Amino acid sequence: MTYSAVNTIWVLLGAALVFFMQAGFSMCEAGFTRAKNTGNILMKNLMDFCIGTPCFWLFGFGIMFGAGSAILGGIDPMIRGDYSAILPAGVPLWAFVIFQTVFCATSATIVSGSMAERTKFSAYCLYSAAISLFIYPISGHWIWGGGWLSELGFHDFAGSTCVHMVGGVCALIGAWMLGPRIGKYDKDGNPRAILGHNLTFAALGVFILWFCWFGFNGASTVGMDTDELMVSAGLVFFNTNLCAAVACCTTLIFTWIRYKKPDVSMTYNAALAGLVGITAGGDAVEPWAAAVMGVVFGVVIVLSVEFFDQKARIDDPVGAVSVHGVCGALGTILTGVFASGISTEKGLVYGGTHFFLVQLLGVVSVAVYVAAVITVVFLIIRKTIGLRVTPEEEIAGLDISEHGLLTAYAGFATTPEEVLVAGEEAPVPAVSGDVPPAEAIPVKSVPAFAEGTRPKFTKVEIVCKEEKLYTLKAAMSEIGITGMTVSHVMGYGLQKGKKEYYRGLTVEETLLPKVQIDIVVSKVPVRSVIEAAKKVLYTGHIGDGKIFVYDVENVVKVRTGEEGYDALQDVE
Amino acid sequence: MTYSAVNTIWVLLGAALVFFMQAGFSMCEAGFTRAKNTGNILMKNLMDFCIGTPCFWLFGFGIMFGAGSAILGGIDPMIRGDYSAILPAGVPLWAFVIFQTVFCATSATIVSGSMAERTKFSAYCLYSAAISLFIYPISGHWIWGGGWLSELGFHDFAGSTCVHMVGGVCALIGAWMLGPRIGKYDKDGNPRAILGHNLTFAALGVFILWFCWFGFNGASTVGMDTDELMVSAGLVFFNTNLCAAVACCTTLIFTWIRYKKPDVSMTYNAALAGLVGITAGGDAVEPWAAAVMGVVFGVVIVLSVEFFDQKARIDDPVGAVSVHGVCGALGTILTGVFASGISTEKGLVYGGTHFFLVQLLGVVSVAVYVAAVITVVFLIIRKTIGLRVTPEEEIAGLDISEHGLLTAYAGFATTPEEVLVAGEEAPVPAVSGDVPPAEAIPVKSVPAFAEGTRPKFTKVEIVCKEEKLYTLKAAMSEIGITGMTVSHVMGYGLQKGKKEYYRGLTVEETLLPKVQIDIVVSKVPVRSVIEAAKKVLYTGHIGDGKIFVYDVENVVKVRTGEEGYDALQDVE
Amino acid sequence: MTYSAVNTIWVLLGAALVFFMQAGFSMCEAGFTRAKNTGNILMKNLMDFCIGTPCFWLFGFGIMFGAGSAILGGIDPMIRGDYSAILPAGVPLWAFVIFQTVFCATSATIVSGSMAERTKFSAYCLYSAAISLFIYPISGHWIWGGGWLSELGFHDFAGSTCVHMVGGVCALIGAWMLGPRIGKYDKDGNPRAILGHNLTFAALGVFILWFCWFGFNGASTVGMDTDELMVSAGLVFFNTNLCAAVACCTTLIFTWIRYKKPDVSMTYNAALAGLVGITAGGDAVEPWAAAVMGVVFGVVIVLSVEFFDQKARIDDPVGAVSVHGVCGALGTILTGVFASGISTEKGLVYGGTHFFLVQLLGVVSVAVYVAAVITVVFLIIRKTIGLRVTPEEEIAGLDISEHGLLTAYAGFATTPEEVLVAGEEAPVPAVSGDVPPAEAIPVKSVPAFAEGTRPKFTKVEIVCKEEKLYTLKAAMSEIGITGMTVSHVMGYGLQKGKKEYYRGLTVEETLLPKVQIDIVVSKVPVRSVIEAAKKVLYTGHIGDGKIFVYDVENVVKVRTGEEGYDALQDVE
Repeated sequence: MTYSAVNTIWVLLGAALVFFMQAGFSMCEAGFTRAKNTGNILMKNLMDFCIGTPCFWLFGFGIMFGAGSAILGGIDPMIRGDYSAILPAGVPLWAFVIFQTVFCATSATIVSGSMAERTKFSAYCLYSAAISLFIYPISGHWIWGGGWLSELGFHDFAGSTCVHMVGGVCALIGAWMLGPRIGKYDKDGNPRAILGHNLTFAALGVFILWFCWFGFNGASTVGMDTDELMVSAGLVFFNTNLCAAVACCTTLIFTWIRYKKPDVSMTYNAALAGLVGITAGGDAVEPWAAAVMGVVFGVVIVLSVEFFDQKARIDDPVGAVSVHGVCGALGTILTGVFASGISTEKGLVYGGTHFFLVQLLGVVSVAVYVAAVITVVFLIIRKTIGLRVTPEEEIAGLDISEHGLLTAYAGFATTPEEVLVAGEEAPVPAVSGDVPPAEAIPVKSVPAFAEGTRPKFTKVEIVCKEEKLYTLKAAMSEIGITGMTVSHVMGYGLQKGKKEYYRGLTVEETLLPKVQIDIVVSKVPVRSVIEAAKKVLYTGHIGDGKIFVYDVENVVKVRTGEEGYDALQDVE
Repeated sequence: MTYSAVNTIWVLLGAALVFFMQAGFSMCEAGFTRAKNTGNILMKNLMDFCIGTPCFWLFGFGIMFGAGSAILGGIDPMIRGDYSAILPAGVPLWAFVIFQTVFCATSATIVSGSMAERTKFSAYCLYSAAISLFIYPISGHWIWGGGWLSELGFHDFAGSTCVHMVGGVCALIGAWMLGPRIGKYDKDGNPRAILGHNLTFAALGVFILWFCWFGFNGASTVGMDTDELMVSAGLVFFNTNLCAAVACCTTLIFTWIRYKKPDVSMTYNAALAGLVGITAGGDAVEPWAAAVMGVVFGVVIVLSVEFFDQKARIDDPVGAVSVHGVCGALGTILTGVFASGISTEKGLVYGGTHFFLVQLLGVVSVAVYVAAVITVVFLIIRKTIGLRVTPEEEIAGLDISEHGLLTAYAGFATTPEEVLVAGEEAPVPAVSGDVPPAEAIPVKSVPAFAEGTRPKFTKVEIVCKEEKLYTLKAAMSEIGITGMTVSHVMGYGLQKGKKEYYRGLTVEETLLPKVQIDIVVSKVPVRSVIEAAKKVLYTGHIGDGKIFVYDVENVVKVRTGEEGYDALQDVE
Repeated sequence: MTYSAVNTIWVLLGAALVFFMQAGFSMCEAGFTRAKNTGNILMKNLMDFCIGTPCFWLFGFGIMFGAGSAILGGIDPMIRGDYSAILPAGVPLWAFVIFQTVFCATSATIVSGSMAERTKFSAYCLYSAAISLFIYPISGHWIWGGGWLSELGFHDFAGSTCVHMVGGVCALIGAWMLGPRIGKYDKDGNPRAILGHNLTFAALGVFILWFCWFGFNGASTVGMDTDELMVSAGLVFFNTNLCAAVACCTTLIFTWIRYKKPDVSMTYNAALAGLVGITAGGDAVEPWAAAVMGVVFGVVIVLSVEFFDQKARIDDPVGAVSVHGVCGALGTILTGVFASGISTEKGLVYGGTHFFLVQLLGVVSVAVYVAAVITVVFLIIRKTIGLRVTPEEEIAGLDISEHGLLTAYAGFATTPEEVLVAGEEAPVPAVSGDVPPAEAIPVKSVPAFAEGTRPKFTKVEIVCKEEKLYTLKAAMSEIGITGMTVSHVMGYGLQKGKKEYYRGLTVEETLLPKVQIDIVVSKVPVRSVIEAAKKVLYTGHIGDGKIFVYDVENVVKVRTGEEGYDALQDVE
């Protein structure tokens, strides 16, 4: 046989797992950001892979693996050339191509997290294509495609630099050029925490990524048909897992001391930091070194996130710059420190200065190259279609503004967000001197009305079942009511329904969901509203609802400044 | 050795991945539907697999793979016969049985999505059993069990027809016989968008499905011990991925043009469309053809979803008919167009008319067979236990009505749903003229105050856009307001915004999220509050908000027991 | 070659899948508990793995597999010894170590579910370390490390006893020593259902676990290079799947009969019960026996959950004691009943009494050993750092109290929880005799009031902390208030709490969640309501709440058409 079944299975299994990282990245990024941008984030994470796949097929693979110079591979649209020289032993071409495709897409995905919640979707599609078309393939050629770094002996086993740092550098430049999200920094430049909307999704994302990393790193042996490869695969699995676990333990302790309590989302970030960091040298270091590296990444991730947030003031919603950029670079360099000589030259602690310097050179030259090229790409995008959405779009959320999606969580009530609107750096409107002195009580009717002429305004408050809202609205419209406020409340009564069971226990059902509709009327008689509501709500069964009537002293419509009767006359 | 280790590993790995599709289908279906039915949907997705497994063991496998005629296999309860004639080379019996079991369950699962939110759970269990017991196994015998279609040379590599179209046809008949969900069409028959409750779950489901499709398609080589199989597996992986990615890119562009904005959920659907479509011929076409097919599926999925929603008026909440039925059929036929001759006869573009016609025949005959049988099954169920829940149960949600589950999301506040209750086509109650005139009523003071000495307390209620909260708070603080209550409400008005699309439908936007800020003042003049609020809220555009003023009779501060004026003087 | 590629692939694939169980456990446990503890639960599920990994590397592996006595292995920090005697054929050391590491971590994870929502995080970290350091390795040595039970012929294929029952026994002792969650039992000892906050996550967790179980059980052949191993792996896959599926069908039917409706979360639990149960003998029984065992587990899981909840009054939020402890033990014993002799001695039904007794002995001795050791560990923790959080911390939620995490679901509105605060067994404050007689106000019955005769209606609006809702409701009931409306609001004040951190940033805490209770009274004096509320709400600390009193002009009850006084007289 020409091919090796075990090698092919190993590579294809790796490809499937690395593909599944897209799910992990999506969940992480969605979970660590706000609900109003979730649809946009899911879309970006899907599309970077979907755009990257044909781009890599059309040009990327050829540039990365085609026969060429030490700097560039070749141009080979749709991969029709002969790659037998570079194919791993016993692996068919398309199996190798799909394996490389999913690695490329991982690099592109990393960027979206740092630029989340404010980047134009069209701009995202463009730079994502650029990464897969040529940015990643070129440095990939240097490292894995037989280019100059690989000839120097640079070792990046599964891509701490080649995949993660490339993504991380793009993320850094992107987040910096975009500027922070509205509300991230106050007018004095102090950062504010913007909480992610679903930590469970974020945690799931991390677990998925960790799981897939066994494919990312493990299958990077691209073979299983020799004793060396099998031993290496086992070691890679163990080191990958140990480094990530130790990084988490370290961050747990470090944040416990630093913030007084163990920080959940930072510790989850630490898992990724450990995984990224061990990716360059998982095959090259001994377990004790993997553990030591885990300690380093567990401390560095915290300091790095703080640095970019508080000192550099680069707003990176998910910490991708620190995880992928900083720990990717650091992991590659530490491979030059701890490499035991199993699969590479020996590292610094074994006296191998040369290897260490090669690792350093590789990291620096790739970082400089990527930073330069992506800056040009972003500048071109900024000058043409624009990189960032408008402040109005950003505040409204990218779901509605970029995709016309009202919400990714239909049916759930949300709490208002406190956002400092752009341009309102001094949000305190000077309620200046002409405010009447704050003195004790006797309050006359408000200025809008002459003494004794206050017209009658009445609030009718209707509490009823949710499913009546639609018909009630229609009925109110019919009698000339054009505005109302609806809220979700819970009605409590002694009413007892059927018993419901949850895990064998009966469930108490005393708080029932209801809607409350508030309508303020002046011209429309209160009696009309009551009768119209009764007609709609009446069924004769328990739970038809109640109506309350209150006096209202005044109404003001902000847009026109109208008060009293006029303020109720039209709708907005 | 009798068996091949690599073949066995490959098949078992495939079985595990195809099992995991159940998670993908569950997440997709739950995410694209409403929260009040989530428990029911999760239950159905679990039970179709759990019912299907023993059914396939008891009868299905024998009918599908037993020695028999060109139409039917045999009856072999609990699989005790000899299947050495049909077992793939080197694969033990039970490994092959589990592999086939999970494929069968996939077919059954597909149906649940189209019939979601209104099907009786007991009915679901019954027809799900019927699919696994004999519907799927019979056509499966024709295609994969040595039956008449396989003898004709019909090629359905991993089941575009055998699995997906079978499920899709059942879904179509089911959704049609059930009728649409209440509220899906207005009285003029215009469809309304019913938004899914959690797009993140839906997206996760798609990623899980894509991941598992590498097992579904890849492991359908059912072997890895020859060069041909290895090359084929690599190509299948690459084609599967490319077709899905290109379908997404196509739908992205197509919806961007058609709905003005790139549609999130439709693009996610496109991924599945591409995956289903390439399943019949992933081993038989070249990558360029997989890409071309991706373009076709990316367009067809949009048109098909629109057709069933708007023209055929068949309510398919998750688009399963279009994804599995339409793209399953189309993918099988397109295999007859693009097959390069690697693993089958040549297709149309290579001059292979015969093969194309066989593919067409296979699709049509399986569709007709399945439609006929499932119709009978549904009719029997409808006549006996009934197919659909009552309107009351449907409006209340199937979680509570079918499972006694109060909510799948305990602790989360939900917003009222606007549902037009069946039979209320003319919801407007006629309000007559005999309403008494509204006039003022004297109010006495509450017991805490001596007669005539009650100070004046006033509640100012401000309803405005969420993003104004921050500045409004600051402004109130400036004029001495130190406490307020904020709640989330929905404002209703006649205002019409831009049209937004969800899965090709316009979304009604009449309930807009707002915040309501309640401030009770005594010393601070009401006028100051009003003017300060106007200053902050005014933009001159529709939606600036309203301010309501109410009399308050008393205020009590619990901690200190203070009442009246004193209760308002500090903050807690 | 020294090593076998297929064995190594099989073991590493298994390791990756068993790792991914951590995601499944996290989702299950988070989903079945309340949102206020989600961050803590995610953190625990991450950290048990992250702490367990280095602990097992440092000591656990040596104790379990080191050459030693029948009771104990050896001490071999960082696994530097020679394990060639115990390594499975053809599997490199580190591949075997990572495989064993993920099994160990599974055992530790199980405990967290039963002790959820009330355990101190620091205590959790400690006992989790103890399990991985020595508790699991010692009994593991007896069973899998060549110890006395393995010498007797005890058969626990993939760990029903070794992994699951060990975890389940720790969970039982832990939940019992901790005591139930506040509010789980009323003052008469009757259990209350505390609903999980996200059933979709729980269901996803079960699907992930089932998927991974193919690795857990399947890869426990630790090899694929002989016909016997391949046949065994196929059978294990099939039995595992069949047993779980049949268990679900059984529970579906059983709960349908018992609770009148098929219970969603119990049926999902049944899947896990079946999976745990078949783990000991998946290789040793025939498919029919796997199905019979599935029926047993499907009934037992329901009875066991009910027993611990209602009879033993041990509060196990996720049912881990029943799933892992009871079904783990039972599955091991049933292996002694149904073993066909393929891979072990014959079981009881084939006349093999000896094997049955060995299985029984194994289960009992491991259970006794684990119960004894973990009790000592918990006692030491309880005496030193403490095992349980304070009632205040528990009511506030462990997210905020243990991790300073405001919420895992930022931006979502939540509904108030009805919690009986500890020490308030009689939550009804005796609003004693000094309440004025319930009349005082002349009320006429209705439709609009004659001039000057409007009775007095008053709305009392109480804004207070969420946890007071339960006692406030009881107090109101006591004074004759039978209806109220409850809504979720946010209170704003200048109050400054402790600093909380999110990703290293302080979080602004100015909007605090509160409930607003609206009560409209006529006959019941306003003063009674105020005094009753004050009695319940008063603590003397900041944040006790405020009460506002408003005049109401009229009240209408829709069902009866009554207005005014009569509309308030009963409840619906």
